[in-house]
Amino acid sequence: MPEHDGLWTKIPDSATLQNMKKAELNELCDVLRQIMIETVSQNGGHLASNLGVVELTVALHRAFRFPKDQVVWDVGHQCYTHKLLTGRAEVFHTLRQEGGITGFPSPAESETDCFITGHSSTSVSAANGLAKAKKITGDDGYVIAVMGDGALTGGLAYEGLSNAGRSHDRLIVILNDNRMSINQNVGFVARHLAKLRIRRRYLRFKQVFGKAINHIPLVGAALYRFVSGQKDQFKRRLYRSSTMFEEMGFHYLGPIDGHNIASLDEALRSAKNLERPVLLHVLTTKGKGCDYAIKNPAIYHGVGKFDITTGQTAAPSTSFSTVFGQQLQKFAAEDDRICAVTAAMTDGTGLKDFAAAYPSRFFDVGIAEEHGVTFCSGMAQGGLRPVFAVYSTFLQRCSDQLLNDTALLNSHVVLAVDRAGIVPDDGETHQGIFDVPLLNAVPQMTVFSPATFEELELQLKQALYDVKGPVAVRYPKGVPLTSAAEFAPTERAYTYLRADGAKTLLITYGRISANVLEAAKYLTKNGRPTSVLKLNCIKPIDPKCVELALSHYHVHFFEESAPVGGVGERFGNLLAHNEFARHYTVHAIKENPGVCTVASGLHKAGLDTEGILQAVGGDVL
Amino acid sequence: MPEHDGLWTKIPDSATLQNMKKAELNELCDVLRQIMIETVSQNGGHLASNLGVVELTVALHRAFRFPKDQVVWDVGHQCYTHKLLTGRAEVFHTLRQEGGITGFPSPAESETDCFITGHSSTSVSAANGLAKAKKITGDDGYVIAVMGDGALTGGLAYEGLSNAGRSHDRLIVILNDNRMSINQNVGFVARHLAKLRIRRRYLRFKQVFGKAINHIPLVGAALYRFVSGQKDQFKRRLYRSSTMFEEMGFHYLGPIDGHNIASLDEALRSAKNLERPVLLHVLTTKGKGCDYAIKNPAIYHGVGKFDITTGQTAAPSTSFSTVFGQQLQKFAAEDDRICAVTAAMTDGTGLKDFAAAYPSRFFDVGIAEEHGVTFCSGMAQGGLRPVFAVYSTFLQRCSDQLLNDTALLNSHVVLAVDRAGIVPDDGETHQGIFDVPLLNAVPQMTVFSPATFEELELQLKQALYDVKGPVAVRYPKGVPLTSAAEFAPTERAYTYLRADGAKTLLITYGRISANVLEAAKYLTKNGRPTSVLKLNCIKPIDPKCVELALSHYHVHFFEESAPVGGVGERFGNLLAHNEFARHYTVHAIKENPGVCTVASGLHKAGLDTEGILQAVGGDVL
Repeated sequence: MPEHDGLWTKIPDSATLQNMKKAELNELCDVLRQIMIETVSQNGGHLASNLGVVELTVALHRAFRFPKDQVVWDVGHQCYTHKLLTGRAEVFHTLRQEGGITGFPSPAESETDCFITGHSSTSVSAANGLAKAKKITGDDGYVIAVMGDGALTGGLAYEGLSNAGRSHDRLIVILNDNRMSINQNVGFVARHLAKLRIRRRYLRFKQVFGKAINHIPLVGAALYRFVSGQKDQFKRRLYRSSTMFEEMGFHYLGPIDGHNIASLDEALRSAKNLERPVLLHVLTTKGKGCDYAIKNPAIYHGVGKFDITTGQTAAPSTSFSTVFGQQLQKFAAEDDRICAVTAAMTDGTGLKDFAAAYPSRFFDVGIAEEHGVTFCSGMAQGGLRPVFAVYSTFLQRCSDQLLNDTALLNSHVVLAVDRAGIVPDDGETHQGIFDVPLLNAVPQMTVFSPATFEELELQLKQALYDVKGPVAVRYPKGVPLTSAAEFAPTERAYTYLRADGAKTLLITYGRISANVLEAAKYLTKNGRPTSVLKLNCIKPIDPKCVELALSHYHVHFFEESAPVGGVGERFGNLLAHNEFARHYTVHAIKENPGVCTVASGLHKAGLDTEGILQAVGGDVL
Repeated sequence: MPEHDGLWTKIPDSATLQNMKKAELNELCDVLRQIMIETVSQNGGHLASNLGVVELTVALHRAFRFPKDQVVWDVGHQCYTHKLLTGRAEVFHTLRQEGGITGFPSPAESETDCFITGHSSTSVSAANGLAKAKKITGDDGYVIAVMGDGALTGGLAYEGLSNAGRSHDRLIVILNDNRMSINQNVGFVARHLAKLRIRRRYLRFKQVFGKAINHIPLVGAALYRFVSGQKDQFKRRLYRSSTMFEEMGFHYLGPIDGHNIASLDEALRSAKNLERPVLLHVLTTKGKGCDYAIKNPAIYHGVGKFDITTGQTAAPSTSFSTVFGQQLQKFAAEDDRICAVTAAMTDGTGLKDFAAAYPSRFFDVGIAEEHGVTFCSGMAQGGLRPVFAVYSTFLQRCSDQLLNDTALLNSHVVLAVDRAGIVPDDGETHQGIFDVPLLNAVPQMTVFSPATFEELELQLKQALYDVKGPVAVRYPKGVPLTSAAEFAPTERAYTYLRADGAKTLLITYGRISANVLEAAKYLTKNGRPTSVLKLNCIKPIDPKCVELALSHYHVHFFEESAPVGGVGERFGNLLAHNEFARHYTVHAIKENPGVCTVASGLHKAGLDTEGILQAVGGDVL
């Protein structure tokens, strides 16, 4: 139990919430904010966005009955208040800790979490399906999707809205407009929402103006009708469908103050009574109630441990992401064909300095990974050298764009696949364990997997200059596990560390090469000479690697990836093709580790040194 | 050479086109239409959409210089006139024939085809990249994207537009509005475009009305300023940004008559002069110039051989698609949880009758495959039993929605994967050869692969009622290769046809099981007893199948899929794990066969009976 025990007792259950007065509700919101700030300052997490939706969430819990009614949180990380109000206050101090509660909605934690979300822009599609199920099964509950303005930059949100709007279901989409996605909001969405904010002022102005001209003799009334849009059907149509959401079929309400519970109560009551798809536009302030978070919402969007008084975070340290960004900037200085693309992850992918240095060659496309790839392929066909920096988990969105728009043209698009492998803290939706199978499936694709910063630098160069066609360099979040001299960067496709008399060969790639090497050294030292084959390029597999494996008796493959369609399976198949009669095993990430640290995730998967030794067979020692 | 030789000589080169008079141009358009109708009546192809863009394409070739300027055709199949005007008239009779020209843009055919398109909604993203390359490299050419209204239902189009609109590049998006996507247009897009068509009328009305009130003493002028939007900035903003495209940053022109070359000439001239992203809204008639195509644009969208005089097409025959549709309808009659979802492919997926019978449980989501999957997962979580019927090639768009939105929740979503394997006629972009690797990568996913109609019926039932979690049934376009009694439907995961004394085992699944069986029979008859193992469920692989394989000396795997991440590789790995010391080979579709028939595609890939015998080793006979 945390020390600030007194706070938790102030969190009412859902029934109590209904009868609380304004002052009590405001006090509750303060308490909720305090708990979140304290917890995130200890555990890290998504702070600014959660501080922004406290009143909104309280109002939702006053207006609706969960789990009969259902709320889908877009991207998911804005669900902290919801967790606190649904019986998870006492375990909230375990947020994002292994064995604790996750930072995202989780049906396994609570039946009030109805859908797993972690990637952006999915909520309306999911809510559309949930609402349709209620309609068809005769359940009169409501479904609510809460979506930030940033999520609107993703095509799936548009698909979801334009389909959900056509339904006649009890669906309420709450657009949480904090005028900011993770990085600064881009283009159309910002402009459209700005227009809606202006519209409210305009409509007021028109009302006043209309009353004035109504008094003009003879023509006044007719003009008023024209201006106020009561008679002229063309004009009425223009006004009534002047927001995209209305054209999509939603009843649009707003914008309203998302920090005023009375306004929210009223708006949600209206939304419920409409009995059809409603879009409620709510204005909130990211970081509300916490000065340093308001000032720097980007920093406190997703943040590590920080000083609760000053907000001081740990100095940013060198990581694969920052090394990538710096190195790409160096290449860009010499080669003005090089462009960098990100999908709303300028900071996360280490491109902040690149963006400042080469603004005309830097593109933040919003949360639009599909567009990112096809856009890059167009640039490559036009003679540029585009680099798309994207998290492994979000690359999952690009299969078709890689297969059809890139590989068929053999476009030289460079993918910088960040956070590949075990991703700490964020849980199941953010694990980077599928990029290898998905990239493997793409013809023409070359894939590098560095274990160290130096390798990343070299392989980025190879990807930019030595490879034809689509190519990926995939690297993990954070820092290498080693700077082992044995893994000095080489342009060769593999690094072979032979132990004299070895009958055992351990094959691997990427970060865990460090653990594999350590295990091999231990085995060798203890009387079982063991060689290591580290793949630097994991696709294509160099045939010499297969030859090397064939000369051993025990071959074990370790990979920090989902197993199906991974490199280990492919390697096993090549061994079978070559009539390898001996011992072969693959050890990969069979189960999504959920919330974990890098160390614990690797341990669970048996990819730490201990697990590797165990897999190879301690009994052989 | 075709018989109607006279026609081809009337097709001018690009330079001549500039100087042609109105009458000559109209005659040219007639000739182009005649050629297309004749060719498609013989070869099949996309007719209605191509007939709609004849004048538009001629105007593009008058306004621009290809390949310096570049045009990206969305979905690609509307490029026939472009092909005829760029040196491919003489080979146009080979359209969609093996060794002939493809029905889609192909840089291999002509440098005036700058991008491969085949899937919807990609053109603006690609054009955005091409235009960016021109800007950065200092090339003053233009890039044009031509996109139908149907393509606007896809999220990628929205991502592309909202990004391209922010650029300052010479990019012209032509919205070819024929008020119809492949099936009827849905929701928002139709509504928004209807508004734009109305707006034109309204603006004219306003102009007249404005002039009238301008004469009113004292207040007239002020009111006119108000009404005409010159003074009031709120109002001006409303009007100026009253189309989504303008809010996205495009200069909007239109709507104009897409069959009037003079209007098109003028509009394209304006668009060029604006030197910034322009959206030109063009109204066309699908099937223009061909009565039966105008009357039934859906039938003549993509059509097989037909009678050129009457338009009579062959009677629709029973196919995997129609069997699927009928069977699903039967289940739906008994089980009102069953819903069917399509992404603008109601006819193609065999769901037309289902849609008519159960309109409240049928959903055409537009060209929005991503939404389709997430929507289904929502429905499944709400207790329904959704079935998403989708072509294999378009399923490529759903990896993330399957991994994150479906598999993590273990949602019971049924995928009916149509056109899996070799797809005739449409070429490289439509081959269904990646669904197996992509589905294999999804945890929890079960995959069935029927070889016959009867198996499809049974496996659909298993998918609906016996499986938990996400499940796919994948079947090819058209008809089975056999109705072999040996493959009587069974609920078991595999069918084992043992030949006495067999040392050779052929493993396979799906349609080509017929060829594999025929090869095994031939071998057995000729003194080499050969067993067949047909996988009915290809994921997970039943461990007994591995056991069976281990008891043979020669094991050969045949699959109608890309090899990497396919079932053969996975099987090989399992053999290696089991220390299988003997002979194992995988034979899959190593190269995209491009334009082909089913027979020729299988032949190229070595998956016809002849190829299978060859792979197994004729010398062993």
